[in-house]
Amino acid sequence: MTISQRRARLRDRLAAADLDAMLVSNLVNVRYLTGFTGSNAALLVRVDGEDAQPPVLATDGRYRTQAAQQVPDAEIVIERACGPHLAGRAAADGVRRLGFESHVVTVDGYAALAKAAGDVELVAAAGTVEALREVKDAGEVALLRLACEAADAALADLVERGGLRPGRTEKEVCRELESLMLDHGADGPSFETIVAAGPNSAIPHHRPTDAVLAAGDFVKIDFGALVSGYHSDMTRTFVLSPAAQWQHDVYDLVATAQRAGRKALVPGVPLRDVDAASRDVIAEAGYADNFNHGLGHGVGLQIHEAPGIGAASAGTLLAGSAVTVEPGVYLPDRGGVRIEDTLVVGESGTPDLLTRFPKELAIL
Amino acid sequence: MTISQRRARLRDRLAAADLDAMLVSNLVNVRYLTGFTGSNAALLVRVDGEDAQPPVLATDGRYRTQAAQQVPDAEIVIERACGPHLAGRAAADGVRRLGFESHVVTVDGYAALAKAAGDVELVAAAGTVEALREVKDAGEVALLRLACEAADAALADLVERGGLRPGRTEKEVCRELESLMLDHGADGPSFETIVAAGPNSAIPHHRPTDAVLAAGDFVKIDFGALVSGYHSDMTRTFVLSPAAQWQHDVYDLVATAQRAGRKALVPGVPLRDVDAASRDVIAEAGYADNFNHGLGHGVGLQIHEAPGIGAASAGTLLAGSAVTVEPGVYLPDRGGVRIEDTLVVGESGTPDLLTRFPKELAIL
Repeated sequence: MTISQRRARLRDRLAAADLDAMLVSNLVNVRYLTGFTGSNAALLVRVDGEDAQPPVLATDGRYRTQAAQQVPDAEIVIERACGPHLAGRAAADGVRRLGFESHVVTVDGYAALAKAAGDVELVAAAGTVEALREVKDAGEVALLRLACEAADAALADLVERGGLRPGRTEKEVCRELESLMLDHGADGPSFETIVAAGPNSAIPHHRPTDAVLAAGDFVKIDFGALVSGYHSDMTRTFVLSPAAQWQHDVYDLVATAQRAGRKALVPGVPLRDVDAASRDVIAEAGYADNFNHGLGHGVGLQIHEAPGIGAASAGTLLAGSAVTVEPGVYLPDRGGVRIEDTLVVGESGTPDLLTRFPKELAIL
Repeated sequence: MTISQRRARLRDRLAAADLDAMLVSNLVNVRYLTGFTGSNAALLVRVDGEDAQPPVLATDGRYRTQAAQQVPDAEIVIERACGPHLAGRAAADGVRRLGFESHVVTVDGYAALAKAAGDVELVAAAGTVEALREVKDAGEVALLRLACEAADAALADLVERGGLRPGRTEKEVCRELESLMLDHGADGPSFETIVAAGPNSAIPHHRPTDAVLAAGDFVKIDFGALVSGYHSDMTRTFVLSPAAQWQHDVYDLVATAQRAGRKALVPGVPLRDVDAASRDVIAEAGYADNFNHGLGHGVGLQIHEAPGIGAASAGTLLAGSAVTVEPGVYLPDRGGVRIEDTLVVGESGTPDLLTRFPKELAIL
């Protein structure tokens, strides 16, 4: 799918919602619909075809050259107050009903839009573009795959060169892993790398510290690579030899739960059932209270995007969505295990596993 | 100033605005007022003293342990929908007028707040905490200084080891510089490092590419270090030998303009006059159109914060604010120069220069 085809899909949604145009303020959505990567922009997409009315991208003077290069098929307007300018433009162009991103536009931002829009009716259209983004096209899957491959290769290098060993600090491991991702083609980490050793592994979201890895520790590593705007996300948990029986038990439990979650990735299945498929395994083993976050989330141009996969999630899983499956069991003050993959939900029901680093318990 | 003293200053502002309480949604503001660094939180500060009513920090289950550790003097509530929960809490506590951050809360978020707040009057209080943050306390200046020192030391290392030389790519230079910042104690870069060589140096905000540094190039490096949440910001422009006369001329012009901007950093001076002090030098030399961005900005817990220093800025410069001074002259397809420091505005009028890397033209 080309980027202009993404806008065509948006126009279909606009027509269905009786909107004459949409004002896109979320920069990630602007990037999805245009390829523009600057830090200040808004986009006006009219429901009529682009032959008559090309999209209008507003940005400021810093991005004059870049906008022209990245978005040759749009009309570029240089204007710092991007949103209000485009609301005024919509009014001038005779738009009656203008969709806006009510989940992104602030209260103050809305006041400025309303002033500029005059008689145009502003219609809350939260999540319209995010819904399009939920299903990835081939180009997006290719970039996600590259991001996951960079992360896989970096972690393999790290383990192979003995990077996970007693005496190192969480921060040292983090830094080496991030450097290895760059070696393997990443533009950078896709979020703040988690390296959590020993008791710290029981903290679901732990930032690397000067804590020293020790024999017998769990080492939980949750990280990802960013490639051309696309984010990979993977967690692996290791044990630094020797492994105690409780560590084998917790690991096996999480691995079983994670497998059940992956197997549940079938198009049309309610999202909460995907969560339950994994969570029930942990609950039946008596650890329900030790898995206190959702099972997964969509991943793409953002590290967290639609769909959320949790016990309270509404909706069903869509073929072509890219999601994580990441159950965990955390035993306070002792340690925790999380195992996470990024996968693309297949048409047939067999998901495409993008993060391919092994998941058997590795005792290093 | 302790963190609880920051909240006392906020309470003074609330009292002056006849607000019974303030709901803080901006995570950076929550951090400033509590020290909490998680990714989901909101804070309720009541106008009455903390003996009677300690602040209430809402966050989700991921941060239960961290919140208790980081914010021992607050009441911690575990609740994913932080803002609406605290709006409901304010209602239950008899708050009549509740300030909210209208520049941060989205249209949809406001609807949820209003529903939870019931009869409580929601009062737009945009920028209240940001205004407090504009003047740095001693602890903040100390962290900014550490961040600037890490950046200074990294750039000095890079130059000393010959890291800026023909044949290297912008990306290679970027990576080495970022690695050196970590060596010197940074938690990471404070924003996306700019390394722009040759014609790319004429692009004010350029992301490093595989472009190769060549003899005779300008190399413009705009970067900073992050230390404990505080951001440094510095730009230096070098020439790879030989330097042409036009490069000397442009460099001298920008250096003169930058010096004029620094000299204008006097408490009480209108912000636009600070901008003009530097911009006029460039305009008088005939390059007004080649300096197409503001002169500077505040820096602290965010890389861009109050005050903005531009031709259209309202307000005056405050003693104790930390700002950048960064004029540039960009000659399309040839090259550009920007020179930027981070400084703290002094009571007496002599700013405290935090970025101390030399500014004489270095021909490498």
